[in-house]
Amino acid sequence: MLEDYVPTGIPGVDKILAEKGIPKGHTILVSGGPGSGKTTFAIQFLYMGATQHNESGVYVTLDEEPGDIRKNMLNYGWDMKRLEDEKKLVFINVSPVRVTPSETGLIQIGMKEFRLIKLLEAIKRGVKEVNAKRVVVDPITIFTLQYPNEVERIYAMRDLLRDLRQTGCTNLMISELRGTGWEREHQFEEYLTQGVILLRTFLKGSRMVRVFQAEKMRGLAIDNQPRPYEITAKGIEVYPSATVYK
Amino acid sequence: MLEDYVPTGIPGVDKILAEKGIPKGHTILVSGGPGSGKTTFAIQFLYMGATQHNESGVYVTLDEEPGDIRKNMLNYGWDMKRLEDEKKLVFINVSPVRVTPSETGLIQIGMKEFRLIKLLEAIKRGVKEVNAKRVVVDPITIFTLQYPNEVERIYAMRDLLRDLRQTGCTNLMISELRGTGWEREHQFEEYLTQGVILLRTFLKGSRMVRVFQAEKMRGLAIDNQPRPYEITAKGIEVYPSATVYK
Amino acid sequence: MLEDYVPTGIPGVDKILAEKGIPKGHTILVSGGPGSGKTTFAIQFLYMGATQHNESGVYVTLDEEPGDIRKNMLNYGWDMKRLEDEKKLVFINVSPVRVTPSETGLIQIGMKEFRLIKLLEAIKRGVKEVNAKRVVVDPITIFTLQYPNEVERIYAMRDLLRDLRQTGCTNLMISELRGTGWEREHQFEEYLTQGVILLRTFLKGSRMVRVFQAEKMRGLAIDNQPRPYEITAKGIEVYPSATVYK
Amino acid sequence: MLEDYVPTGIPGVDKILAEKGIPKGHTILVSGGPGSGKTTFAIQFLYMGATQHNESGVYVTLDEEPGDIRKNMLNYGWDMKRLEDEKKLVFINVSPVRVTPSETGLIQIGMKEFRLIKLLEAIKRGVKEVNAKRVVVDPITIFTLQYPNEVERIYAMRDLLRDLRQTGCTNLMISELRGTGWEREHQFEEYLTQGVILLRTFLKGSRMVRVFQAEKMRGLAIDNQPRPYEITAKGIEVYPSATVYK
Amino acid sequence: MLEDYVPTGIPGVDKILAEKGIPKGHTILVSGGPGSGKTTFAIQFLYMGATQHNESGVYVTLDEEPGDIRKNMLNYGWDMKRLEDEKKLVFINVSPVRVTPSETGLIQIGMKEFRLIKLLEAIKRGVKEVNAKRVVVDPITIFTLQYPNEVERIYAMRDLLRDLRQTGCTNLMISELRGTGWEREHQFEEYLTQGVILLRTFLKGSRMVRVFQAEKMRGLAIDNQPRPYEITAKGIEVYPSATVYK
Amino acid sequence: MLEDYVPTGIPGVDKILAEKGIPKGHTILVSGGPGSGKTTFAIQFLYMGATQHNESGVYVTLDEEPGDIRKNMLNYGWDMKRLEDEKKLVFINVSPVRVTPSETGLIQIGMKEFRLIKLLEAIKRGVKEVNAKRVVVDPITIFTLQYPNEVERIYAMRDLLRDLRQTGCTNLMISELRGTGWEREHQFEEYLTQGVILLRTFLKGSRMVRVFQAEKMRGLAIDNQPRPYEITAKGIEVYPSATVYK
Repeated sequence: MLEDYVPTGIPGVDKILAEKGIPKGHTILVSGGPGSGKTTFAIQFLYMGATQHNESGVYVTLDEEPGDIRKNMLNYGWDMKRLEDEKKLVFINVSPVRVTPSETGLIQIGMKEFRLIKLLEAIKRGVKEVNAKRVVVDPITIFTLQYPNEVERIYAMRDLLRDLRQTGCTNLMISELRGTGWEREHQFEEYLTQGVILLRTFLKGSRMVRVFQAEKMRGLAIDNQPRPYEITAKGIEVYPSATVYK
Repeated sequence: MLEDYVPTGIPGVDKILAEKGIPKGHTILVSGGPGSGKTTFAIQFLYMGATQHNESGVYVTLDEEPGDIRKNMLNYGWDMKRLEDEKKLVFINVSPVRVTPSETGLIQIGMKEFRLIKLLEAIKRGVKEVNAKRVVVDPITIFTLQYPNEVERIYAMRDLLRDLRQTGCTNLMISELRGTGWEREHQFEEYLTQGVILLRTFLKGSRMVRVFQAEKMRGLAIDNQPRPYEITAKGIEVYPSATVYK
Repeated sequence: MLEDYVPTGIPGVDKILAEKGIPKGHTILVSGGPGSGKTTFAIQFLYMGATQHNESGVYVTLDEEPGDIRKNMLNYGWDMKRLEDEKKLVFINVSPVRVTPSETGLIQIGMKEFRLIKLLEAIKRGVKEVNAKRVVVDPITIFTLQYPNEVERIYAMRDLLRDLRQTGCTNLMISELRGTGWEREHQFEEYLTQGVILLRTFLKGSRMVRVFQAEKMRGLAIDNQPRPYEITAKGIEVYPSATVYK
Repeated sequence: MLEDYVPTGIPGVDKILAEKGIPKGHTILVSGGPGSGKTTFAIQFLYMGATQHNESGVYVTLDEEPGDIRKNMLNYGWDMKRLEDEKKLVFINVSPVRVTPSETGLIQIGMKEFRLIKLLEAIKRGVKEVNAKRVVVDPITIFTLQYPNEVERIYAMRDLLRDLRQTGCTNLMISELRGTGWEREHQFEEYLTQGVILLRTFLKGSRMVRVFQAEKMRGLAIDNQPRPYEITAKGIEVYPSATVYK
Repeated sequence: MLEDYVPTGIPGVDKILAEKGIPKGHTILVSGGPGSGKTTFAIQFLYMGATQHNESGVYVTLDEEPGDIRKNMLNYGWDMKRLEDEKKLVFINVSPVRVTPSETGLIQIGMKEFRLIKLLEAIKRGVKEVNAKRVVVDPITIFTLQYPNEVERIYAMRDLLRDLRQTGCTNLMISELRGTGWEREHQFEEYLTQGVILLRTFLKGSRMVRVFQAEKMRGLAIDNQPRPYEITAKGIEVYPSATVYK
Repeated sequence: MLEDYVPTGIPGVDKILAEKGIPKGHTILVSGGPGSGKTTFAIQFLYMGATQHNESGVYVTLDEEPGDIRKNMLNYGWDMKRLEDEKKLVFINVSPVRVTPSETGLIQIGMKEFRLIKLLEAIKRGVKEVNAKRVVVDPITIFTLQYPNEVERIYAMRDLLRDLRQTGCTNLMISELRGTGWEREHQFEEYLTQGVILLRTFLKGSRMVRVFQAEKMRGLAIDNQPRPYEITAKGIEVYPSATVYK
């Protein structure tokens, strides 16, 4: 049943995802290093949804300001403002507001601003506003880092994922990769989400090579091989038939 | 005595397990990374038990919701719902219920929901309900992580294993692998369970290769060599005669 | 003086131990990973002592239940029950008994059950009962882990070793190896015991290879080279003339 | 639109930055090891701005004293004093003043001196004084280290970056690299800033090679390959067409 | 001046030590892994001193019991008892005495037994008793481990070394190596003592090779190259002209 | 201007330092492993200053006693006593004095002895006494280790460096290297001082090779390549034209 999958619309990606896309209603982790194009990937997912598949989107930013994103995405020829005007996209800024340090403890306030319930309310409001089918939270790292220990982080992330489900949307959680090597510790988010896409960069001889890998996609027989990708003038492009040598 | 072993029914696995299967009544750890097919392996074990060996099963989920699992498993042609209707399978959802943060401490409640005694009661209820011979707990990581230090985790895991024994069932504990390298720290669960199966993925030249390894199986002269496996349209398939080069 | 050494009776091992065996009265650490055959090695030591050298043995288990061990060892043709009936072997189960969590703190109780004095009393009782010459504690890891820091673990282990000496028996302490690589941190037990035997498994090309190594044996000019071993239908067999390439 | 980019004026760098420079108003992290020329890079950015692009600059030092920097930069033929007299550059020294230990706790005072609000006031004062378009904070490490844990560091850095934005200036944050290897943990600052430039040194055969890498530059299709650079008599020079072999 | 050096008398070692030996009055760290022959090296130093250079010795044991050492050393043909009778050697056992746990805290007592002042008194008593010129403390690790943090360990070790000096003796501190690799963290004792000798074992192809290395020897132009050594029927023998390949 | 640089007088070093030496008034970190000749390097710097450049020196020892250093340096033909008599050198011993443990806490006292203000007073007294132009603190590690956390260590080191400046002297801070590999974590002292010289030892094939590297020297275009060095009968000798292969 084709209607059970959400095509990303990102060149090469849907081919890797069993020629289908992301299973509808699933939440996928997109994890990458600095400069790996995580935000470009996320916006491209929403832009292609809005322009090619008639699916509105919500972009929840915990870090970069909407104005910056709008401007940067123009470089790929993506006019976010127009989509917003057409009610096909809504930006939600939940980055913490600083409170004068003399009044209250800086971090305490930051944490309250971010707490789970506010984040969920913001997402639901956005989904309702544009009748969204796709949601991005970028980066989820800022959200989980506020919890002091790993168990609390896991519980908070599980709660978030559970509530996200009820929206019926297909979601990307953007996360920041810790290390730069092929061998690494798995992050707990990789186990909690229903799919994991890695955007990494490795040194091969004298060149940095960008590597896309669909590590996991529940309910789908994906190609889990590492594949080269580039950030072109038109956004992310993955080469699903090319190979990457270590 | 053939009746002392429980065939997994998973292609290639029983050949590796001395052409027999898992010793009856034993608890086996199945540890793998994200996307390695741990849940598929576990369900396949229950499905083959129910359909080929007339052994009912209990699937205790601490993470994914039964509805999702039922749906995903249809991809392999496994109709869980039918097995449930025929009383050959029961799903038990013991994932923690969120309580409104304003009422009580979020994690405290989560922990109470999960405590050992509840988990055991749930398993016993399920075993009784379908007269089960096979039990899966997926993933055990969520259970052990609630205990603040390693010693407490060991004791809790031992207690769980001891009580599981009394059910007479043959059990799989699904666990999440920490790292991605060939060299790694052993997890304490590997020492506490009676068998260990590893489902890993390694980069070999330009390809990710899936590697099955029966690391340990008490009372059985197993093949402990790394063997390639695939996740096919019919579930996990292990190739017991093929070799994996580092 | 031949009577100063205790032959292990395990094929290949005594050849490595200067064609003699373990110095009488010494305590040897046997450390290995999951599935490396540590318990098989330990039981084989006791079984060969009882059947070939007329030395009774005590097997103290802190983990696996005697019934399971008896059953598993039958696979090697070793009839533990008969040895027990002939007063050539005694099993002592000192694994901690769980107390209802509502009554007392779970771990506290566990620790009390295990405390040094109880462990020693149990060993001495067993030694007296069968006039034992050989003692195995399996695994010692469970004992040391209860002590909260490294210094306390060292002292507890030293105390245990000191008292074990007074029994006059030759002893094996079974321990669980932490990592899987050739390079590793030494465990403190390696320094406290009078001998160290390592049972490890390494990937060599496409194969896991089992490697026996006598790392240390006070008062004996041993062969400290890595040697291949196998777990056969007759138990552990070490090949003292074969070499292992990294 | 050319006026949207700030050319660094450093030989080879603007070519790598898409033949443009740093996006106006962005804050870029420049991270390097000891002796990698971080301060030279930063001053060169301000000097070229003042002498070739008519953009005044503010240099905030948290470590080295202005007098030392002035003297060292003369080696490259850069006369800082003259720029200061011409109101094209201002040095701001916010390194912490020591207070007699007998009076107050040493570190407490140091922390107060450094607190965010003071740092921001100093920057704003400097920007106003010379109508600056470029700002350097060197090194930001001293600022972030005062915060006891990672979450607080992230929040403090975010706050700093947010306020820096309001100045409209284009900014370099100088940071100290932790390790010397190709594989490394990403620092959180790499995720918070809009661009990352790495200045590293690697051993290649018998030689240390200096390696420049533009890891990230939001909104710009940069060359992210590692490129050799040298510290010459005229300052930093990057070779954008040369390659670096591992 | 030849009388300023103390020949170890161990075959091959003095050649490496500039054909002289250990500078008189210095304290040398001898660090090695389990089974590396540290105690053999130490006793050989005392035995050769007593039998070839007419220098009495004190052996302070913090771990192994004198009776065991006497017995083990007979394997090398070294009759400790005779040396003791001739007042050329004295064994001092300062290993901690266990106190009944019910009376006092186990570790507290152990620590008191070990405290610096007792250790020094014991050494001085021994030196006086046989008019010793050589002292061995084996292993120093047990002494330093009682101090809860690194700074306290450094101070305690410095104090010990300072007082040891006043005896005028030439001393060996035996220490336990942490890891098994060529690359390692330096232990603080290496910086505090006036010389460092490493006894290690590395896997080379299919063989474990024993490697002696004089890492440091203040005031002496030593050969700091790795050299093979063996534990023969006559004790340690180092081959100062042979090379060890990595 | 030649008078702005202080030649070290150590064979090969000044050639590496742009044929000049250390910039006058700068503080340089000299970091090396055990036996790398750090103290020899430091004394050679003072000895050459006093005998060839008419610059008196202060040697502050936090570890080794002056008598030992005097004696060891005679091996290189350096007569420290004569320099002291001629008021060209002064030794200052600020190593902590032990206080009877029964009176006060051992470590507390040690820390007071060492506190910053005392160290500075001692240095200033020494500088005044011989009108010194060169100062060595050996090892600075003992000083920084007393501060319980990294931030306090950084502040204390910065304070020390700032006050040292006011003396107008050119200074070497001797520090102890943590690890033995090519890849390592940078120590914070490398960022705080104006220059960094590394004295390391690496295994190359079958040989340990001593490697000198000027990692950083503010305001000077140095040769930062690794260069072999030896500890000869005349002290340290660096070979500035030779190469070191990894």
